Amino acid sequence: MKFISRAIQLAAEHSASGNNGPFGAVIVKDDKIIAEGWNRVVELNDPTAHAEMNAIKSACQSLQTPDISGATLYTSCEPCPMCLAATYWAGIDTVIYACDRHDAEAINFDDNAIYQEMQLDNPNKKIKLTQESHKEGLKVFEDWKNNEKKIMY
Amino acid sequence: MKFISRAIQLAAEHSASGNNGPFGAVIVKDDKIIAEGWNRVVELNDPTAHAEMNAIKSACQSLQTPDISGATLYTSCEPCPMCLAATYWAGIDTVIYACDRHDAEAINFDDNAIYQEMQLDNPNKKIKLTQESHKEGLKVFEDWKNNEKKIMY
Repeated sequence: MKFISRAIQLAAEHSASGNNGPFGAVIVKDDKIIAEGWNRVVELNDPTAHAEMNAIKSACQSLQTPDISGATLYTSCEPCPMCLAATYWAGIDTVIYACDRHDAEAINFDDNAIYQEMQLDNPNKKIKLTQESHKEGLKVFEDWKNNEKKIMY
Repeated sequence: MKFISRAIQLAAEHSASGNNGPFGAVIVKDDKIIAEGWNRVVELNDPTAHAEMNAIKSACQSLQTPDISGATLYTSCEPCPMCLAATYWAGIDTVIYACDRHDAEAINFDDNAIYQEMQLDNPNKKIKLTQESHKEGLKVFEDWKNNEKKIMY
């Protein structure tokens, strides 16, 4: 079975009950599936439990590292901005997807709307972002910069 | 103590060992802190374990819902695109931050770089995004659309 078909199969299997959104994903490394994930937002009361996030976390657990560079993400739908940013943080540089953000929008998911928000400067976003206590925050970054024990990731 | 100061305090406390990035966050609802989070990427081998993500998940667990509309996120640093998209999915519409993406860049974190990627159309992104098996994927969305048991979120 093609890797993308397995991602789509996971989406179908885990959404049939109506309890989880219709999204599935697999992570492939060295031509083998090393992790699978599916949407569990409703089941877990976790708005971050998207298929891709769950697959990435599972792959990282499996390899015991937060950096899975060289892995490929196969997902039944184009990653939303949360999941796409997670692929960057995980070091993934190749994503194969079946449906896209517009298909997701057609079944009432906000992926496309959130992509549009990401294009805007902060003052124009729907979310109100305000800066406070900048100097107090910078002190922690300064301490981190000078921390000789720090582990970068 | 101000809510933003508590977020900054969490960042300081949990990064002093050098094992976790210097980021902290709290979620406030009805003028009370309902959840706290800090960066645990290295500790958990989880690239998604940012302070804001952990705080959002904890708040949702606490209230037993993936929708915490009306809550405010206080974070020691402007949320990266992953965390900002998570605030949308969680229904949060107000974010107070101390440091910003440029401060994070100055201590070698990729927040600003990932924001720049988000501004680009897919073909111009560093991550290679390719569509496959679109029709096969759409079938699952069609089934979901017609699923009378589905729970939207």
